Amino acid sequence: MRQALIFDVFGTCVDWRSSVARQVADVLPGVDPLSFADAWRAEYQPAMERIRAGNRGYVPLDDLHFENLQVVLDRLGVVCSDLEQLSRAWERLAPWPDTVPGLLALKKSHIVAPCSNGSIALMTRLGKYSGMPWDCILGADLARDYKPKAEVYRASVAALRLQPSEVVMVAAHNDDLFAARAAGLKTAFVARPTEHGPGQMTDLAPESDWDWIATDFLHLAEQMA
Amino acid sequence: MRQALIFDVFGTCVDWRSSVARQVADVLPGVDPLSFADAWRAEYQPAMERIRAGNRGYVPLDDLHFENLQVVLDRLGVVCSDLEQLSRAWERLAPWPDTVPGLLALKKSHIVAPCSNGSIALMTRLGKYSGMPWDCILGADLARDYKPKAEVYRASVAALRLQPSEVVMVAAHNDDLFAARAAGLKTAFVARPTEHGPGQMTDLAPESDWDWIATDFLHLAEQMA
Repeated sequence: MRQALIFDVFGTCVDWRSSVARQVADVLPGVDPLSFADAWRAEYQPAMERIRAGNRGYVPLDDLHFENLQVVLDRLGVVCSDLEQLSRAWERLAPWPDTVPGLLALKKSHIVAPCSNGSIALMTRLGKYSGMPWDCILGADLARDYKPKAEVYRASVAALRLQPSEVVMVAAHNDDLFAARAAGLKTAFVARPTEHGPGQMTDLAPESDWDWIATDFLHLAEQMA
Repeated sequence: MRQALIFDVFGTCVDWRSSVARQVADVLPGVDPLSFADAWRAEYQPAMERIRAGNRGYVPLDDLHFENLQVVLDRLGVVCSDLEQLSRAWERLAPWPDTVPGLLALKKSHIVAPCSNGSIALMTRLGKYSGMPWDCILGADLARDYKPKAEVYRASVAALRLQPSEVVMVAAHNDDLFAARAAGLKTAFVARPTEHGPGQMTDLAPESDWDWIATDFLHLAEQMA
């Protein structure tokens, strides 16, 4: 029996790239904003990997975003007058057009919650900014580790007192779904073919027989009605 | 700067006594439902106290409710055909009439979250049942301990990446507010004079100069507008 849907957020629910770029353009004139957003995001996996590998204790993503911003600014030789404010750009990301109506439809008969690498603080603020109607916030903070480590999915399922088979992981990234499936969860793939811009080459299509495959969240809601 | 309001739930947001009694009446004919609700609730503090005192590891409130229900049934010599279902009565409690409109008003300019002894699972389900529009779920599960231990307030504030002085604890119980103030939080008292029925003798009035004192959540929202 399907009880809860848990969601990847960056890319799956929100368009981080254009949203970060817009905020970069506001405070860093003379920098190419989309390239800057891509460079900032490129530091994301390596920063988490040090923690996943056990080479560093758990540090919330808010702090990694701050550190990674400094790295990118230093590399470009750019000075930012309010590093803290810009580092919180990830709290102000636009949802894809179908995200909020889709979540509202799915929420009628399921618990809906983020299972993101973002912290409770970050996901709470992003949820308010974007209008995403979460029932609770799950994810990295509960496990004090980062996806795709199995513990993040397991801790999220356990916090709801459910079995993994009662929970669906919804993501636009095949690697997230492979890890969720390995932890016993059901899986739903929603393609976000412009997450990385018009030239995106990855995650354009499902790479396995995921339990649900949908074009957007409203399509997913129709299938789950 | 006030950023977040965190709420006691049982008694402050929801009328647990009449809601539990109604569900007891449905499944245990021949039992006085209000007395049963009171007896069940009377086991609440002693069960948590064993954990607060370190005599038992953290056990979520869902499990304590189940154990306490068995204790009360055994004492009365009553058999319940679906213990698990009745033990989950605490997921189905009616909000006070002002709770949901008050939270919706307060949510416009603050993060609103439960800081309850209920688990993430219990608070998530109760939130959905009652329509309480939480931004996230804080409380006992984050600290793996029970209020009024300071760690529960501290862990809730830390999860939001705020300072204690930026967070207001809202409760109908003076002891909850004394503990929150000791942990550095701001405090708001909302009287719930019929939480324990018409003969209630405790928490009828504020017992200190709390930062806010309100007759209900709408009155609190007016003061915080």
